[in-house]
Amino acid sequence: MEIKEILKAVKDGDLSVDEAVLKLKIKPFQDIGYAKVDIHRELRQGRPEVIYGAGKTVEQITGIIETMQENGQDNVLVTRIGKAEGEAIKAHFEDVRCHPEAGIAIKGRNKKVSGIGTVLVATGGTSDIPVAEEAALTAEFFGNKVTRLYDVGVAGLHRLLSHAEEIMDASVIIAVAGMEGALASVIGGLTDCPVIAVPTSVGYGASFEGMSALLSMLNSCASGVSVVNIDNGFGAGYIADMINHMGVE
Amino acid sequence: MEIKEILKAVKDGDLSVDEAVLKLKIKPFQDIGYAKVDIHRELRQGRPEVIYGAGKTVEQITGIIETMQENGQDNVLVTRIGKAEGEAIKAHFEDVRCHPEAGIAIKGRNKKVSGIGTVLVATGGTSDIPVAEEAALTAEFFGNKVTRLYDVGVAGLHRLLSHAEEIMDASVIIAVAGMEGALASVIGGLTDCPVIAVPTSVGYGASFEGMSALLSMLNSCASGVSVVNIDNGFGAGYIADMINHMGVE
Amino acid sequence: MEIKEILKAVKDGDLSVDEAVLKLKIKPFQDIGYAKVDIHRELRQGRPEVIYGAGKTVEQITGIIETMQENGQDNVLVTRIGKAEGEAIKAHFEDVRCHPEAGIAIKGRNKKVSGIGTVLVATGGTSDIPVAEEAALTAEFFGNKVTRLYDVGVAGLHRLLSHAEEIMDASVIIAVAGMEGALASVIGGLTDCPVIAVPTSVGYGASFEGMSALLSMLNSCASGVSVVNIDNGFGAGYIADMINHMGVE
Amino acid sequence: MEIKEILKAVKDGDLSVDEAVLKLKIKPFQDIGYAKVDIHRELRQGRPEVIYGAGKTVEQITGIIETMQENGQDNVLVTRIGKAEGEAIKAHFEDVRCHPEAGIAIKGRNKKVSGIGTVLVATGGTSDIPVAEEAALTAEFFGNKVTRLYDVGVAGLHRLLSHAEEIMDASVIIAVAGMEGALASVIGGLTDCPVIAVPTSVGYGASFEGMSALLSMLNSCASGVSVVNIDNGFGAGYIADMINHMGVE
Amino acid sequence: MEIKEILKAVKDGDLSVDEAVLKLKIKPFQDIGYAKVDIHRELRQGRPEVIYGAGKTVEQITGIIETMQENGQDNVLVTRIGKAEGEAIKAHFEDVRCHPEAGIAIKGRNKKVSGIGTVLVATGGTSDIPVAEEAALTAEFFGNKVTRLYDVGVAGLHRLLSHAEEIMDASVIIAVAGMEGALASVIGGLTDCPVIAVPTSVGYGASFEGMSALLSMLNSCASGVSVVNIDNGFGAGYIADMINHMGVE
Amino acid sequence: MEIKEILKAVKDGDLSVDEAVLKLKIKPFQDIGYAKVDIHRELRQGRPEVIYGAGKTVEQITGIIETMQENGQDNVLVTRIGKAEGEAIKAHFEDVRCHPEAGIAIKGRNKKVSGIGTVLVATGGTSDIPVAEEAALTAEFFGNKVTRLYDVGVAGLHRLLSHAEEIMDASVIIAVAGMEGALASVIGGLTDCPVIAVPTSVGYGASFEGMSALLSMLNSCASGVSVVNIDNGFGAGYIADMINHMGVE
Amino acid sequence: MEIKEILKAVKDGDLSVDEAVLKLKIKPFQDIGYAKVDIHRELRQGRPEVIYGAGKTVEQITGIIETMQENGQDNVLVTRIGKAEGEAIKAHFEDVRCHPEAGIAIKGRNKKVSGIGTVLVATGGTSDIPVAEEAALTAEFFGNKVTRLYDVGVAGLHRLLSHAEEIMDASVIIAVAGMEGALASVIGGLTDCPVIAVPTSVGYGASFEGMSALLSMLNSCASGVSVVNIDNGFGAGYIADMINHMGVE
Amino acid sequence: MEIKEILKAVKDGDLSVDEAVLKLKIKPFQDIGYAKVDIHRELRQGRPEVIYGAGKTVEQITGIIETMQENGQDNVLVTRIGKAEGEAIKAHFEDVRCHPEAGIAIKGRNKKVSGIGTVLVATGGTSDIPVAEEAALTAEFFGNKVTRLYDVGVAGLHRLLSHAEEIMDASVIIAVAGMEGALASVIGGLTDCPVIAVPTSVGYGASFEGMSALLSMLNSCASGVSVVNIDNGFGAGYIADMINHMGVE
Repeated sequence: MEIKEILKAVKDGDLSVDEAVLKLKIKPFQDIGYAKVDIHRELRQGRPEVIYGAGKTVEQITGIIETMQENGQDNVLVTRIGKAEGEAIKAHFEDVRCHPEAGIAIKGRNKKVSGIGTVLVATGGTSDIPVAEEAALTAEFFGNKVTRLYDVGVAGLHRLLSHAEEIMDASVIIAVAGMEGALASVIGGLTDCPVIAVPTSVGYGASFEGMSALLSMLNSCASGVSVVNIDNGFGAGYIADMINHMGVE
Repeated sequence: MEIKEILKAVKDGDLSVDEAVLKLKIKPFQDIGYAKVDIHRELRQGRPEVIYGAGKTVEQITGIIETMQENGQDNVLVTRIGKAEGEAIKAHFEDVRCHPEAGIAIKGRNKKVSGIGTVLVATGGTSDIPVAEEAALTAEFFGNKVTRLYDVGVAGLHRLLSHAEEIMDASVIIAVAGMEGALASVIGGLTDCPVIAVPTSVGYGASFEGMSALLSMLNSCASGVSVVNIDNGFGAGYIADMINHMGVE
Repeated sequence: MEIKEILKAVKDGDLSVDEAVLKLKIKPFQDIGYAKVDIHRELRQGRPEVIYGAGKTVEQITGIIETMQENGQDNVLVTRIGKAEGEAIKAHFEDVRCHPEAGIAIKGRNKKVSGIGTVLVATGGTSDIPVAEEAALTAEFFGNKVTRLYDVGVAGLHRLLSHAEEIMDASVIIAVAGMEGALASVIGGLTDCPVIAVPTSVGYGASFEGMSALLSMLNSCASGVSVVNIDNGFGAGYIADMINHMGVE
Repeated sequence: MEIKEILKAVKDGDLSVDEAVLKLKIKPFQDIGYAKVDIHRELRQGRPEVIYGAGKTVEQITGIIETMQENGQDNVLVTRIGKAEGEAIKAHFEDVRCHPEAGIAIKGRNKKVSGIGTVLVATGGTSDIPVAEEAALTAEFFGNKVTRLYDVGVAGLHRLLSHAEEIMDASVIIAVAGMEGALASVIGGLTDCPVIAVPTSVGYGASFEGMSALLSMLNSCASGVSVVNIDNGFGAGYIADMINHMGVE
Repeated sequence: MEIKEILKAVKDGDLSVDEAVLKLKIKPFQDIGYAKVDIHRELRQGRPEVIYGAGKTVEQITGIIETMQENGQDNVLVTRIGKAEGEAIKAHFEDVRCHPEAGIAIKGRNKKVSGIGTVLVATGGTSDIPVAEEAALTAEFFGNKVTRLYDVGVAGLHRLLSHAEEIMDASVIIAVAGMEGALASVIGGLTDCPVIAVPTSVGYGASFEGMSALLSMLNSCASGVSVVNIDNGFGAGYIADMINHMGVE
Repeated sequence: MEIKEILKAVKDGDLSVDEAVLKLKIKPFQDIGYAKVDIHRELRQGRPEVIYGAGKTVEQITGIIETMQENGQDNVLVTRIGKAEGEAIKAHFEDVRCHPEAGIAIKGRNKKVSGIGTVLVATGGTSDIPVAEEAALTAEFFGNKVTRLYDVGVAGLHRLLSHAEEIMDASVIIAVAGMEGALASVIGGLTDCPVIAVPTSVGYGASFEGMSALLSMLNSCASGVSVVNIDNGFGAGYIADMINHMGVE
Repeated sequence: MEIKEILKAVKDGDLSVDEAVLKLKIKPFQDIGYAKVDIHRELRQGRPEVIYGAGKTVEQITGIIETMQENGQDNVLVTRIGKAEGEAIKAHFEDVRCHPEAGIAIKGRNKKVSGIGTVLVATGGTSDIPVAEEAALTAEFFGNKVTRLYDVGVAGLHRLLSHAEEIMDASVIIAVAGMEGALASVIGGLTDCPVIAVPTSVGYGASFEGMSALLSMLNSCASGVSVVNIDNGFGAGYIADMINHMGVE
Repeated sequence: MEIKEILKAVKDGDLSVDEAVLKLKIKPFQDIGYAKVDIHRELRQGRPEVIYGAGKTVEQITGIIETMQENGQDNVLVTRIGKAEGEAIKAHFEDVRCHPEAGIAIKGRNKKVSGIGTVLVATGGTSDIPVAEEAALTAEFFGNKVTRLYDVGVAGLHRLLSHAEEIMDASVIIAVAGMEGALASVIGGLTDCPVIAVPTSVGYGASFEGMSALLSMLNSCASGVSVVNIDNGFGAGYIADMINHMGVE
């Protein structure tokens, strides 16, 4: 643990008390006014940084990316941005790919694929695809093999069952659905791998902008299902990556 | 239409104006103070009367039954009563059967079985059985053949699929489920007959006493699913009877 | 049942194991990337396919219609589309009728009228008409005779009562209302046929975008009332068709 | 206005400044520790005092009554008390009548009947009667003629219509209903007098303890309907009295 | 009562049975397709008709006004319309006044002022004025003297108290307030006339678009306060008129 | 700052690295299995410890008190306990005072009174007193002069205004009210000191167990009002103490 | 107290009764039609006036400022205005500074800095800054030294802990956060000064526009945390000023 | 995949068509009337069966265990039972251990410990321990090493930070907290392993029985946090086991 090393350096006289206090404080991030950028994250966690773009200007986003770049972080995932923001970021850096349907821009490269197995991303309907893509692209960025299985909602069970093999072979499954959100329970009952349920705000009337799917998924009678926030594809992709890399160097 | 006949009788002098007014008013029910008992219903609708027992004393319930009896209605369904109330009613009349697990007492006989086909009552779990029995006994009381299919929740899809034949053969299906309420959608996707969804208050936490299942069922992506109030087994049985007797004399 | 026939063909050597597995999987739908189109539905259920247009582009919708056409499904109902989308679809196929007030486009013909009787569609006010038309056009598309009874809200009871005959003659009634949603209960008390209640998002303030009408309808003290999602005219029309064709070849 | 008279007395030397300050402060109520009893109300408003019994001990209630009595207020209405509390109060004072079904005890006499006309109290069902009685007894206590019309819910419209005359003759109507609360709208549409709607907590499931009836009544499409809190029979009776005595000496 | 007279006419031979049935049906309104216009209301209730403009086109509104005019109803109140709609109506009829701040247009004249006393309309803040004007103009249209008392919210109690005389002299008070909605309770405690509380959607955050004010007003500890829907100024003005004309010919 | 001193001791050789790590960890609390007792709080913050009694057994509470006692903390406030629990604690230690009406037991002495001025605790009604006492006793325990002003709800404004002097003289005010919770706004408008609003669960129906008062208080149009959780008298008393001791040694 | 002085003047003959009544009424504010402007506030409370700009036109705002100016109030804070409104106000008066990011315009000068210590304003993320600036500028306007600590959300605890000294040195802390709102609890646990929590509407999905942060803050397990309305930066700044000036002349 | 093997056996003549159909249907569970017991689960998933005890009688539970035993499943976890039910089950089978504090009974042995690392179970307070124990015992039953870290809520951050090493060493963390539920975010920010958040119904007032903690956790700004239903300790333990055994034979 780090604190111990710093204390040891103090004891050995390699570090003065004031230097130690300073070190404990300034080390992990760089303050650029509108944000405190974590510049050690890739080192600490072996995982590149992510910028949550919603509510940030293009200037702020590019500023954060530059700070990262200066600190040796070349690969950055930006989420929740519009098409125009994506284009503007692309114009600023050489190596940016945009995925406007998913609200994502990626600077640099995805990590090399590794992990225990495959991350399966399934959706109930066509309208759930943007959220699913946010999840899928996130998982790919962090170095996972991803299979997409879209429009397999439970009202046409044969569409889902005809893919039973992919479902049973997956290492982690991300189930993305709006409306009644039953997809997570049915998939949870068909497999024995962890299922991350993502309610979407797709629907109308008593779907209450994802509330119905959210409650449905939280109450899933299938074991092995955990839930993230409505439309939080990124969160699901991030957790899937964590799980798919359990015990992997 | 009745109003026309009364008017005709007035014109023909067979009825005075005041008598006609009176007739229009007193005909359909008898006022016994704490309730206005509908005594013509079986004649008008070919359907025996039902007493919603919740919030009524045994004295009130037996009083209503007696008023019916005096007007020739011998078969009565009483819902939402406790075991003790059921016993007390049984002690009062000769021909009463009690179903305490479903909160139901039946005086007299069920109607003779008729209808287009079978009413299937399915539940997600064991705890949904009381609500399902309220539905099943109601449908039987009104003269329907009922099949019960309990504990076939979607988390163990094989349990449900192994009964695909019963599901596809049913004339109307009542899907009773708490928690995430996905049963209605899955059944709705497997069949082409009307599905009446009954959310139950079974569950805990974010099931919010049936709210989760209710929203889930209202948002069902399967066509052909309509919904009744939480725990309203009686309502579902009543509608199933209506549908199963469509076009039947 | 189909699975049995496939198994029989395997036994008889008419089908290899792998072919059987394939058959079980690819048969019921065709995957066109953004959607898995059910191409056997009209055969299986005697009911033409429906496209839920919300959240789909004109290209996706016409693509799905073409896939259907190639598989012999000439009659298609498209719901929840804007006026411009409707025009675009009409420009693409010869035989399209648009109903912009109801958000509907119909390719091909309605089914020939059949069924036990008439489907009555009633609304509380003028603003509920778009949802009512979605229901009425759906029921007509599937081959039902439909009577419209608009602006008969309970606050002017004489407007409703003056149509008592139509109400009592109907085979199924769809009651469409926003605000306090009492129409369903009052109609449910006047008739003995199934009533499908459609809450609408019409209203303001404490109507909470249809929530008030929805709760009101779920709590209806009239038996025989079941409920669909807020503004779900299509769902109501679909169920009405099912019920009106009970026992009908 | 009072403040002017006190100021005038100060000017005329009939009152010292400190006495005036005191007068302005101590006049309207007497502080008995656990409550500040309004002892001038009957004088000021011609209306006897009411004690809201919920959450008060018998000792507190009798203490308040005694304080009133000492100040010449002999007639007191106590609401929201249990049967035992009522008996205990009766044992304490000579002239107490208890109405346990309505949670009410009355010390002394009702005011002599006056007012423009009749207050009609209607309920949707039998279970709404306790709330209705709270309203009716309150209106009677304050000197109104009250007509009761119970169990006339809209699901059996003939029960309500057969009393059209009482409804049209009433001066003010209190409509008490749980579940879907449609009674207020239907009555509001039949009459042109003010309707005070009282939602009750009667119902189950999606009635959410009166919420459904409350929203329904607030959204009433009938003009002339205003609403009080769930189960607030007293409030409705109080307002009905105010309205029925408009312009009456 | 009318039905009796019709029956009498039938008996006397002045009316055939079929004519009587017809009369009962067509009498009270005229069906113009998109609406069923009540053309006898002014006769029956001594009160001109009102058109709720929200969700109606200018064509529909002018069509309804014309139908009224043809039936001798010259004075019409139109509520919930935009400025443009108001101008368009004004261009169509000679005698129209527009009040865009309140969303109101008035064709013809207000009724002559009558009633027991004054209707006081008070608001908590400046932003509540549009709703208050809807109430005030409605009450004036129906023939009431109206006093306006705006921006007297409880956070600056002296502003309210300095108008104690107007408050105590009023016959009915309409209390219009958003945010915490305390105005109704404080006014209710200062007066002994009926108070109609109108919650407004003014506020932000946890005001939840009027929900906070609505709940606050429903829970008012002051007796004599009843509540209408959020922003329902018209409803409040209508009820105030009813109350202010109690017992008045 | 403490961390610096520990580092300094390490540098000076007065503390080994491992001892330092240990010190940083074990210092501030003692782990007694079911709780981690903060034993330095009185030293660090000059404020005795408090035990939140809800959900703890008498054994756990006395165990925690003993741990404190052993560490020199003699004065302890226990909140949210029943009468029986209070008696049991009293039986265990010599110097315990119980306040069952407020759910409080105090071991040892209150701190000596100090602070800028007076903490005023006001309630809307009699039923709010238990919550108010929790606040008042807490403030007294921490060494504040407390004035109680109970049953001064806004529906009887004169009761509140007659105490204007106490209100204006207070240093901090705690406004405790259920139902519509208007007390906080009115007091906030009368004074210029900080007001801490405590919504209570007192009320029925649409008070939704304190929700109405909570929303009302959060939306207060009076500046200077902040809010704590429903029924959280302790929290209010604690904050009042903080504020009343601002800048006081 | 003022009322006593007025009464004394009446007694001494220095004031007639009618003048006294008038004085009591017109003194504290000036009615300019659309608003009742408090013109004595700075005198009474030593605090300049604030205009809540939302829902007011530029004309109304400048009118209110002019009324204040005429009465000697030169320093005015205007909140909740857009950039355009700010520019328009600036064009109208000489000495206006605009802070469009915070929706604030300030006419005149901030009060001279005084107070016990520093007001610390902390945010969880970058998107919370506008609300935080509303709080910070308000506190500065009223004469407080303000420290800003932005983007220190709990998910990167080191960012917060590295500022432990500022946190512990503050006199009052305003914790501004959306999403899960945990910042208030963690800061509350690190310090012993009052913490004012401001939930923001920043977030998506189940944040329900600030509801999640609001509930989280109300349930804070840290003592010393009180809460204001969602996004109410002004309110927090105002209370912080009150607390930071406790006992200060 | 199993279906393929059955088809192969049919082809090879080892299985008749009817036998195959039967096999597909009856294989996976045994119907004992009140439940359909999954008797192949341990084989299929390498995981013993679990009985959700809530709403089941002792007879039903023991019946299900016996059915399992007869099918060779000797190790069974029973959750959500009372102390009495636990004792009754213990009396029925030889090898039952009861954990009444967690509502759990275990028949047979826990699986042998395996897995990638340690499952850490942390709670915010003492009252969260029952839910935490449900999680911990579940994880142990399925063969995981579990570390417990109780009463480390964020309001006393030092308690949590002093265990930084355990937190950073864990393989999966289960964060159990009620009230504001901030524990999950803070832990999520301190570690890089998956965090499963369990909101508990611990709290009062605006905690709304776990709703506050649930929303807080869903909105966690820390990546890597997924959520299960309120009080669902079992679900969290089950998922932790899945994750801790990723890639482990």
